[in-house]
Amino acid sequence: MGEFGVIDLLTRMVVQQRGGPNHGADLSFKLTVDNGDDTAAWQTGKATELFTTDTVVEGVHFTRETTPWRDLGWKCISSNVSDIAAMGGLPMYALVTLGLPPETEVSELEQLYEGMMEISNEHGVAIVGGDMVRSPVVFITIGLTGIHAGQPMLRSTARPGDQVAVTGYLGSSGGGLRLMLGAGHDSNLSDQVSEEAAEYLRVCHRRPRPAVAEGRILSASGVVTAMDVSDGLADDLSKLCRSSGLSARIHAGQVPVHPLLKQAYPDDYLDLALGGGEDYLLLFTAPAEVMALVMPQLSQGAAVVGELLPGEPGRVSVLDVDGSERPASGAGWDHFR
Amino acid sequence: MGEFGVIDLLTRMVVQQRGGPNHGADLSFKLTVDNGDDTAAWQTGKATELFTTDTVVEGVHFTRETTPWRDLGWKCISSNVSDIAAMGGLPMYALVTLGLPPETEVSELEQLYEGMMEISNEHGVAIVGGDMVRSPVVFITIGLTGIHAGQPMLRSTARPGDQVAVTGYLGSSGGGLRLMLGAGHDSNLSDQVSEEAAEYLRVCHRRPRPAVAEGRILSASGVVTAMDVSDGLADDLSKLCRSSGLSARIHAGQVPVHPLLKQAYPDDYLDLALGGGEDYLLLFTAPAEVMALVMPQLSQGAAVVGELLPGEPGRVSVLDVDGSERPASGAGWDHFR
Repeated sequence: MGEFGVIDLLTRMVVQQRGGPNHGADLSFKLTVDNGDDTAAWQTGKATELFTTDTVVEGVHFTRETTPWRDLGWKCISSNVSDIAAMGGLPMYALVTLGLPPETEVSELEQLYEGMMEISNEHGVAIVGGDMVRSPVVFITIGLTGIHAGQPMLRSTARPGDQVAVTGYLGSSGGGLRLMLGAGHDSNLSDQVSEEAAEYLRVCHRRPRPAVAEGRILSASGVVTAMDVSDGLADDLSKLCRSSGLSARIHAGQVPVHPLLKQAYPDDYLDLALGGGEDYLLLFTAPAEVMALVMPQLSQGAAVVGELLPGEPGRVSVLDVDGSERPASGAGWDHFR
Repeated sequence: MGEFGVIDLLTRMVVQQRGGPNHGADLSFKLTVDNGDDTAAWQTGKATELFTTDTVVEGVHFTRETTPWRDLGWKCISSNVSDIAAMGGLPMYALVTLGLPPETEVSELEQLYEGMMEISNEHGVAIVGGDMVRSPVVFITIGLTGIHAGQPMLRSTARPGDQVAVTGYLGSSGGGLRLMLGAGHDSNLSDQVSEEAAEYLRVCHRRPRPAVAEGRILSASGVVTAMDVSDGLADDLSKLCRSSGLSARIHAGQVPVHPLLKQAYPDDYLDLALGGGEDYLLLFTAPAEVMALVMPQLSQGAAVVGELLPGEPGRVSVLDVDGSERPASGAGWDHFR
């Protein structure tokens, strides 16, 4: 049983065996988005409230070499804000949980919080509490609420024939990670990358910018299907397809890749774009007429990259520029593999 | 700089350097309880919404010997529900984050979720999502929202002269933990505890019952100051006193201890009642006239245990039955010590 199987099993348990909440109409907010999307959501009366959480563990999701404390703080908040952005919402209140080894320095925590405050203030996030616990390994869990005045975008609402698009360049964060990991082991490799490209890729990895503005544009323009790209395009598109019961085809030649990523990794940029994670831009689908309305409002890098098809739910193929078609290789990280 | 110092420092950062949320009146919920209480809270228009998080780490907060998976699931949800109860609210929506070593068995996760579902259904909690990540050590973080129709009870609103009370017997969870830890190392010790007492204490440790009903009674009866007892009475009362800028005195002879805890630990029950954690009942303060109204509505074990005094914020002393007064020794767990 793979990760999907386990998550499906546990999700069935919590939904089917659920008893509540049932506190009466005055003390209930009706749930409108349940397990399986970028956030949960409920109706408060005034607006739809969104609720998400995301965790990083040292040695699994980051190392101190590739991600200094300040950038770690930025990224933790970013990945959660990105989930809110994927629904088309605005982020609001955050709780921060820190698992820390006893040798953690106060100055390190200050740097962590400086990074958290920078990105929080860019997006109007207020940290309103949290928990600090001892742990043999650093982990950080953020719980974040958000708000949407209308209907959030979902993963499950895609239709066959929808075009698939992304809001910006893919693979740059993965390129930055590869660069930093390679630099430690093989100085020749890093020597081949120009300083301009290296700086661009490092910033993409360490300071990803969640697509809040883009999410608002999509949602206001009639897009109803979106998610954020955190595990790589192939993998995340496969999840969207599973939720919507569809297959998808990606056109390799249409995948937007920044010129500096191409320059740095001329042979591997497509793999990075399809399989590299942590880009934190949005993946969305819509009929061609909606897409025509939306695309001109998005900034550089945004592109239609493929289409949705009937077929085995979750299957994603890549149509290469030479006309050959192959399964998208990105299978993402599988906890139980 | 101890744990309090670090938390104060980081709290100052997130409050003073905060920029948001500022999305306009239509897309904002006004924050009414900030960092430092059992939960954060904001006004949705219809009601006050509560937001809390709590984490356990294997080897720090539990071991698999003292806490089987099913009980672990129960306790994780319980400790968060207890924070909501401390505000006088009802729990609502939860996100579950699991940090899991690769060798975790699916059957273990099923047991964990069975325990979570049992306690969730007792209190109308719906698990609406979460995150599952690889980790060298098991950790579980719950993020939980709740709702309150009126004003939540706070830690910071106590007044000099208030009586201090608790909603039930103290120390039983700590007694259960001691019993189980002792049983592994010293069979003589466990032999001295009757089977009835052992069973009672084990259940108190493994299946704590958050005081949601009690919190509702307190809040409806005019109590405005409360928190939950998770780290032990002495320690938690000290936190309440710090928040309210007061000192407190506990009368040792008034601390409610269950007869089976006294029977099992005739020499140590008071230490367990003052310093043992995870009882998850409520600690509250009120003027005598409010207390007289509230106490008859609470069940067995509830008792007035002391009073609040002007003086050094956070200082708690214990008045022993022989008339001598000493500092309450419970200093709780200090992350940086």
